[in-house]
Amino acid sequence: MRIFVVGFGVVARSFVELLESQQPILYSQHGLSPRLIGVCDSKGAAVSERGLIVDDLKAARESTGSVSGVAGHGVRNANVPQLIAECDADVVVEASPSQMSAPARAIENLKAAFRTGKHAISVNKAPLAAAMPAMMELASFNNVQFRFSGTVGGGTPVLNVARECARGDKVKSVRGIFNGTTNFILWKMHEEGLDFDTVLAEAIDLGYAETDPSADIDGIDAASKVVILANYVLGRPCTIDDVRVEGIRGLPRERIEQAAARGHRLKLIGEIGETLSVSPQEVPAGDPLDVPSSLNAITLTLKASADVTLIGRGAGGIETATSVMRDLLDIWNAIGGQP
Amino acid sequence: MRIFVVGFGVVARSFVELLESQQPILYSQHGLSPRLIGVCDSKGAAVSERGLIVDDLKAARESTGSVSGVAGHGVRNANVPQLIAECDADVVVEASPSQMSAPARAIENLKAAFRTGKHAISVNKAPLAAAMPAMMELASFNNVQFRFSGTVGGGTPVLNVARECARGDKVKSVRGIFNGTTNFILWKMHEEGLDFDTVLAEAIDLGYAETDPSADIDGIDAASKVVILANYVLGRPCTIDDVRVEGIRGLPRERIEQAAARGHRLKLIGEIGETLSVSPQEVPAGDPLDVPSSLNAITLTLKASADVTLIGRGAGGIETATSVMRDLLDIWNAIGGQP
Repeated sequence: MRIFVVGFGVVARSFVELLESQQPILYSQHGLSPRLIGVCDSKGAAVSERGLIVDDLKAARESTGSVSGVAGHGVRNANVPQLIAECDADVVVEASPSQMSAPARAIENLKAAFRTGKHAISVNKAPLAAAMPAMMELASFNNVQFRFSGTVGGGTPVLNVARECARGDKVKSVRGIFNGTTNFILWKMHEEGLDFDTVLAEAIDLGYAETDPSADIDGIDAASKVVILANYVLGRPCTIDDVRVEGIRGLPRERIEQAAARGHRLKLIGEIGETLSVSPQEVPAGDPLDVPSSLNAITLTLKASADVTLIGRGAGGIETATSVMRDLLDIWNAIGGQP
Repeated sequence: MRIFVVGFGVVARSFVELLESQQPILYSQHGLSPRLIGVCDSKGAAVSERGLIVDDLKAARESTGSVSGVAGHGVRNANVPQLIAECDADVVVEASPSQMSAPARAIENLKAAFRTGKHAISVNKAPLAAAMPAMMELASFNNVQFRFSGTVGGGTPVLNVARECARGDKVKSVRGIFNGTTNFILWKMHEEGLDFDTVLAEAIDLGYAETDPSADIDGIDAASKVVILANYVLGRPCTIDDVRVEGIRGLPRERIEQAAARGHRLKLIGEIGETLSVSPQEVPAGDPLDVPSSLNAITLTLKASADVTLIGRGAGGIETATSVMRDLLDIWNAIGGQP
């Protein structure tokens, strides 16, 4: 199975390393023999139909600043959609850095894959938040597989669990904490009585939050996951424009204290019910959604059965890389791959 | 797809009702057209190749005390394994009342199904706790599907989530609260400062515990789930004899109070790690396993990714019936059924 990876950030690097180190087990257990035929980053690409070596890619990146520095296989100033369309890949992994405000490039990459009959895995939320119904339709029209389990919950198999719960029952609504950074901030404000700006600065220091934390604290990241769940689990075509979003930027400490006085905790909750929303809400202390630190949690309300809650780390390069591996095996099975 | 159901307790009744009410959706969404061709209870059976009506079964059970009272289709003093072997079913659902101490009958029922080329779904833990490796082997040898997702976690898809986490990663160990009754008892002892016998009596009154609560409070029920997870998720052949079991019968209130003084909660924890065990253990307050009331919770420790925790109600007739429905759809897909 020939694989083309867009992006060479933490997730992409973890994934190609996993692919290389698990080669024997992928073959013996699943009959899958993957070959990495292309990788690109913001400055160029490396392409080889015979397969790329991960150490070469990392060395080139270190010495020249781009994977395009790989001797004999580098492509500078690559036109990525064109490379995708013209290469011989079976599966394209879109793992370029998520830019919620500029999803156009990632959308073009996925379109190029679908239109030329290639399956795709996206770990990038941006194209789904902006255009999930169109992306799903294009994949289906071109009869290719499209997977994106790393976009919600990182390595925690949130989408699979939700789909699984939906089989033989009906998912009525979903509530959850879909962003670890904001959960860390709210939790720290409560535990240590600190104010928003102090904790945000600490979160940036610790690497929990980006230097530009807007996507997290303004609720955009959580809203994109609301979109993906609504489309995938509840079968409701929607984009991020359909989500009412209220973030936690500058949240006064008093909101936390008032909640605590009622025995509650303030959390940034994404809701997929009658309407779609992200907003700070109170949950009772001890509720399954009352999770500490940077954990994520999601509660599914089902028609016949009782609530199901899933808790896990929402992000992390290695976690998300394992979800890409699961998606790859899923595609392999869906197209009839056999051990 | 022709279905034979062993047992007519809460789970079996909920399942056959679900089967009847979901008939249109099962056909339109999955291409599956199920027909209930046999049901038996402790006093007899009803068999009809043309299909049984659920209302007739319930009416017969109410007026005559057994489904064998259905006019024209009743079989008194049925030999269940023989009925299973001779009927024309595609799938046998073993949902007879769980008797951990006497698994022989359920084992015979499953063997009869496997040996005559019938797929099987067990919601009965007893045959798995006593002989899971042999049961798995027999199903595999006869080239039939065997599912049992209702045996752990009721309607919460614990086994599926664990398997899902194991794909593209490795499950190193599992810890969990696998019995709702004992969690209710320990939680109530902590919350209200009551002693064991008082809370047990209340749990029996409320219907949370059986009149004979041994399987719950002696840890046998939890141990059987430890066996199923160890076999299914970690691929470790074992039976209940391999589990070190310590229950909570007569647990002194001081144990709860000492834990609380350390900021901990006492829980009945099943562990699948180096060894297999069920025993009362302390978990920190606020830990994902610190779940209230009769909830179940399970934490999977993975090799590459961070911990994943799943919380849900462990039992309930309707919940477990939805898991049987999922198993049925799984079997339908595994044998090539198409929408």
